[in-house]
Amino acid sequence: MEETKPTPWGETTVVGRPIPRVDGYERTSGAAVYPLDVILPDMLYAAILRCPHAHAMVKKVDLTKARQMPGVRAVLSDADPEAQIPWFASRGGQAASRLFDPHCRYEGEEVAAVAAETPQQAWDAVRAIQVAYEKLPFVRDMDEALKPGAPEVQPGGNRGATPSVSNRGDVVKGFAEADVALEETYRTCCEIHTPMEVHGSVAQWDGDRLTVWDTNQGPFPIQAALSNVLKLPLSKVRIISHYMGGGFGSKLELGKYTVIAALLARKAARPVKLFLSREETFLCVGNRPAHSLRLKAGVKKDGTLTALQLTGMGEVGAYPGGTSAGAQVNQLYKCPNVRTEETMVNINAGQSRAFRAPGFPQGSWALEQMMDALAEKIGMDPVELRVKNFTPVSQPQGNMPYTSAGLRECLTEGAKAFGWKEARARAKGTGPVVRGVGVAAGMWGSAGGPPSTVIVSLFPDGSANLNMGAADIGTGTKTVMAMVVAEELGVPLDRIHIVHADTGTTEYTGASGGSKTVPSDSPAVRSAAFEVKSKLLAMAAEQLKVPVEGLALKNGEISGPGGSPRVAVLDLTALRAQRAVVGVGTRAPNPVDKTARPFAAHFAEVEVNTRTGEVRVLRMVAAQDSGRVMNLLTYRNQVIGGLTMGIGFAMTEQRILDSQTGKMVNANWHDYKIATAKDVPADLTCVPIDMHDNDWNNTSTKGIGEPATIPAAAAIANAFYNATGVRITAVPITVSKVVSLLAERRKRG
Amino acid sequence: MEETKPTPWGETTVVGRPIPRVDGYERTSGAAVYPLDVILPDMLYAAILRCPHAHAMVKKVDLTKARQMPGVRAVLSDADPEAQIPWFASRGGQAASRLFDPHCRYEGEEVAAVAAETPQQAWDAVRAIQVAYEKLPFVRDMDEALKPGAPEVQPGGNRGATPSVSNRGDVVKGFAEADVALEETYRTCCEIHTPMEVHGSVAQWDGDRLTVWDTNQGPFPIQAALSNVLKLPLSKVRIISHYMGGGFGSKLELGKYTVIAALLARKAARPVKLFLSREETFLCVGNRPAHSLRLKAGVKKDGTLTALQLTGMGEVGAYPGGTSAGAQVNQLYKCPNVRTEETMVNINAGQSRAFRAPGFPQGSWALEQMMDALAEKIGMDPVELRVKNFTPVSQPQGNMPYTSAGLRECLTEGAKAFGWKEARARAKGTGPVVRGVGVAAGMWGSAGGPPSTVIVSLFPDGSANLNMGAADIGTGTKTVMAMVVAEELGVPLDRIHIVHADTGTTEYTGASGGSKTVPSDSPAVRSAAFEVKSKLLAMAAEQLKVPVEGLALKNGEISGPGGSPRVAVLDLTALRAQRAVVGVGTRAPNPVDKTARPFAAHFAEVEVNTRTGEVRVLRMVAAQDSGRVMNLLTYRNQVIGGLTMGIGFAMTEQRILDSQTGKMVNANWHDYKIATAKDVPADLTCVPIDMHDNDWNNTSTKGIGEPATIPAAAAIANAFYNATGVRITAVPITVSKVVSLLAERRKRG
Repeated sequence: MEETKPTPWGETTVVGRPIPRVDGYERTSGAAVYPLDVILPDMLYAAILRCPHAHAMVKKVDLTKARQMPGVRAVLSDADPEAQIPWFASRGGQAASRLFDPHCRYEGEEVAAVAAETPQQAWDAVRAIQVAYEKLPFVRDMDEALKPGAPEVQPGGNRGATPSVSNRGDVVKGFAEADVALEETYRTCCEIHTPMEVHGSVAQWDGDRLTVWDTNQGPFPIQAALSNVLKLPLSKVRIISHYMGGGFGSKLELGKYTVIAALLARKAARPVKLFLSREETFLCVGNRPAHSLRLKAGVKKDGTLTALQLTGMGEVGAYPGGTSAGAQVNQLYKCPNVRTEETMVNINAGQSRAFRAPGFPQGSWALEQMMDALAEKIGMDPVELRVKNFTPVSQPQGNMPYTSAGLRECLTEGAKAFGWKEARARAKGTGPVVRGVGVAAGMWGSAGGPPSTVIVSLFPDGSANLNMGAADIGTGTKTVMAMVVAEELGVPLDRIHIVHADTGTTEYTGASGGSKTVPSDSPAVRSAAFEVKSKLLAMAAEQLKVPVEGLALKNGEISGPGGSPRVAVLDLTALRAQRAVVGVGTRAPNPVDKTARPFAAHFAEVEVNTRTGEVRVLRMVAAQDSGRVMNLLTYRNQVIGGLTMGIGFAMTEQRILDSQTGKMVNANWHDYKIATAKDVPADLTCVPIDMHDNDWNNTSTKGIGEPATIPAAAAIANAFYNATGVRITAVPITVSKVVSLLAERRKRG
Repeated sequence: MEETKPTPWGETTVVGRPIPRVDGYERTSGAAVYPLDVILPDMLYAAILRCPHAHAMVKKVDLTKARQMPGVRAVLSDADPEAQIPWFASRGGQAASRLFDPHCRYEGEEVAAVAAETPQQAWDAVRAIQVAYEKLPFVRDMDEALKPGAPEVQPGGNRGATPSVSNRGDVVKGFAEADVALEETYRTCCEIHTPMEVHGSVAQWDGDRLTVWDTNQGPFPIQAALSNVLKLPLSKVRIISHYMGGGFGSKLELGKYTVIAALLARKAARPVKLFLSREETFLCVGNRPAHSLRLKAGVKKDGTLTALQLTGMGEVGAYPGGTSAGAQVNQLYKCPNVRTEETMVNINAGQSRAFRAPGFPQGSWALEQMMDALAEKIGMDPVELRVKNFTPVSQPQGNMPYTSAGLRECLTEGAKAFGWKEARARAKGTGPVVRGVGVAAGMWGSAGGPPSTVIVSLFPDGSANLNMGAADIGTGTKTVMAMVVAEELGVPLDRIHIVHADTGTTEYTGASGGSKTVPSDSPAVRSAAFEVKSKLLAMAAEQLKVPVEGLALKNGEISGPGGSPRVAVLDLTALRAQRAVVGVGTRAPNPVDKTARPFAAHFAEVEVNTRTGEVRVLRMVAAQDSGRVMNLLTYRNQVIGGLTMGIGFAMTEQRILDSQTGKMVNANWHDYKIATAKDVPADLTCVPIDMHDNDWNNTSTKGIGEPATIPAAAAIANAFYNATGVRITAVPITVSKVVSLLAERRKRG
């Protein structure tokens, strides 16, 4: 079959405009049925008993009392043969545990589960389970973990077997060529995703078919993982993820809770709802791992980078996991000699997972503060230094050219919008309260691609169905995709019905992660709508008895070059006869000789009270090159959300493990501080670098979610330095840390 | 795009075999969720107040007390502006009424409705509605209706404005050429569909989007009708019809109950379930209209038909409706001179609707008894007479050839299986109990066609999704369609997930009516599966580095002509990379120069107790040409069901309207007699004439549902005549009728 190939859009009428969400009413009125809202007849509620110790061996689980508790309909533990499921530490990783592993390597590991008539009965029954634990010594950070003789989290020691190394050129030679070389250790904390919606599933069996309403970022990968674990054909596992209240990476993987819900439902022969408590989501569904990053950089006086060398460690928790802070060090700037070496360290804490640009904010925290320090050393403006080291090619991919690369534009347009030169020149203030400005740049490591299949059907009254596999994880995916249909076919947004994120009723696409939903799926939507349009044009040609070439669809009418002959789409007799015109679109492969990346430059102004140590972010500007801006409103939402998370990363967030018990002391929204309205300034400016990346895909898009958060924290740190002359190398920038750093500096004089 | 064009199947491995239903477990275990089983959170239950009089004018509706009844959340009547909906008497017909019309033209017309917390509260509230009716005189059958000065059901009189006339050749000349001409009046009764599942809907609004779980035979036409009535875009009306407990034509049209459920749900801002009681389904959701058919036929001594003339009347109920008993008279046998004239008569009773081969069993009741009488007159075997008048062309369509026409084979193969010659020759018996055998033939008026779009996707573990719009109305559609996928791709049936009959998630197809589901949709399924296969073969060609020509898929492996090279489908790396292969199939247009029809010949043996008047059907044989037999088991089910309905039509079923009140006296399953196990013999034989109609569509199918019931009743009547020498021209063949006919005959000597 011939591929339908739409050419790049000229002037657009819908795409690019700031359009409110098509499901805004449902989401804000409460009408939207999230998985947590699903109620099925005869549904049971489940709860999980979790290990209360940082490290322990389960010696005995006595379920006798629990079984006798009111309302209990099923219990599940490691004693059940069907629960003997090897558990994968990370996607595609090797089995490192099992569903209810007696060796509990962190606080919160699953020990047993109960399904009962009410949630309260389930929790009561969980409390009635009697467990004999043997407590084991634990390690709660990488320093402890790497000490000789430290308790072993995984057999063979706590240091990941093979460090991840990349090497380009010769760093020794590079440092020899440098006029200035600096070296510094940067540290980041463990952050928790804490999306508004807690994690959970509702599982229902229909014979040997399983349907799961699940909170996840992509139903198809969850379907694959669950069918693999339960040894069911893919066609017998249906995952529905219609509404979703945020994931940030924590909902990319199959959760044990989903498997437990499915097993309890089968055991009880009734549907089971299993949702985690807020506390459980702090302990058990992933985090952004803390990093320690030793970075050395060399630069010539003219600003040319000569060498970058990163030695990093990441605290990935109790099981093998991956995160790369080195990717950005390796790619963002032109540098002939780069070496990165990263080691994963196991500790007795919840496992890391992908978290909004995994590794990149950590890498940016190091690299971008280093760039700031280098600029100061050679007396060059930090924006200028970054522009100078711009590269239009992907160095780790053999200098493969980018289809578009707006890093320079991000830096220069962002600086202009921020008033960079003026702000740098302004007095910092002499009183106890000082001000400073900082910049940081960043890139993200992918820009989407196939597979994705989408179906669009147009009804004879001009309304349309859009059928796509992609989940809308709160980012506005449904709205953007509907806009593509509206652009292509002229159908008003409120006449487009969207069915999505359901492995039973939609076609395969990847998960909504990696900022790739728009660049992966919107081209498939456009292809599908384009096929519908092509069929309409062919119908018009036949009806008007003119060649199809030269006919165009505009404002609901198809007309020839001079506007004549013309026919309204709704007057196409063939459309009425067929009752619907169906188009199927797939995401075409990415070009083989080029690659794409989104870029960003963030600017921050902060105010520091040098007496109290209080730091306030006053304003930020984020200039982003993510290819075409599809919806200016949801684009801005993403950027503001990204900056907000960046502020949280820089200023407030950290998981705290108790030194005596190894248990998390702030596993709740009161003690774990995410950035609130009090921490985030109203003055957040989004500067879209609206480059249309026409060589990358047919909607010219690259993805915005993750690049919008990557450099934010480093920009704040650089602004802090600009205000105070003190380098703050470890997040978060807390009052106590600031006070002690400033006191130290005063001592040093 | 190039159309994928599968060639006719050679030997098949799945198609044609007797395969149990893929949803048999769900249907028999109670796991299947029929619309009646749908329970939504906060759902209300509704009930309708119906006019208790055969003809009345509503003078006043007082809802005050009803509103105050416990649990009542919404009431609806003609006083509500949103209920001022013009109502269409039949599909596409003109507005003849409105949703709650004060002029109630039959017992059961809708007067008001209530939604309450429980069904009981809804019914209690309905009883609390106070209505002042002005009773009007009524007419309860066509004889009364056509009397001068009869009460008018519709303005302008009770005789349908224009009789439906068809004319071919010159009947006067035809009768002049005949050696024998006979004339007789045949009468049939009004039958009620009474499917096991009662009619109803569950309506839920989500903002301005409406979802309806509905008992119907085709969600897309219901979507179109409902969106038209409520003035909503098609994309905002989603109809789900996943399981369905029989319709027989009564669930082809939008019900007032569906609109009422939607309006009550909007008013109460809660989901509403509205299901009819069994009694309501007898009164208000259609019937097979009674007919009076005056038929004259001329034949030469050698059996050549020379003329047929039909003057018919149908009692279509209180609103305009259509049914054609003439179509079969017009087409079944070769006859140069045919005139049919049919008039629809309105009476004060529920409106007729399509009912398993609308008009055809009535036409067959007349035509096939007439053929029997003609054969006797000219001394020719009844089978031979029918074979002699076989025609391979469609006479009303300008003698367009049939792609296949198995009427002769039905007659000869059926006669052989029945032992026709031997049975005719056998003594009828001399005691009070006599036996006889009879034959009747029939055809059905359509054989399906586009539009239909189907999507098949194959997963990398070899399981598949089948997405189709067609409803499975209890006939086994899901099983047949899954078999097509299994045949084409080698996927086991239990690894195929089917999503179907949902306007929100599947693509357009027509309703499951007219016996056209298999011939309309199975070719689209085959095209979709074929496209998947084509893509798999292309993948294999690339992987094996051989040309795609010559590669074939068999037993999960793709191999070259000599069985080498070969690769398992599950080892195709491109399939794993893509995660799914999607194929889209549409039903290709029917040929323009040929047409298709299904044919049938039924044979019956009956036993008549000439003293008591009891008639027992001893055995029946049904020989059917419906093109290819897709599933021998569901095919037999259809034939046995068709014979059973034919027995009911002949022997037991009739709506009885009280002469004093005009009200139906047997609106329940106790008094309305459908054929039961006691009426239906175990000895029902299905003789499939498995002609593969390769010129009609790519699965070579024509449809079985309706042709399986058309001639059954006439075969029984002919057997009765053969046993007794008495012609029974009016259904049903009741004991009292038989006793009086035999007594009359004895009187006449």
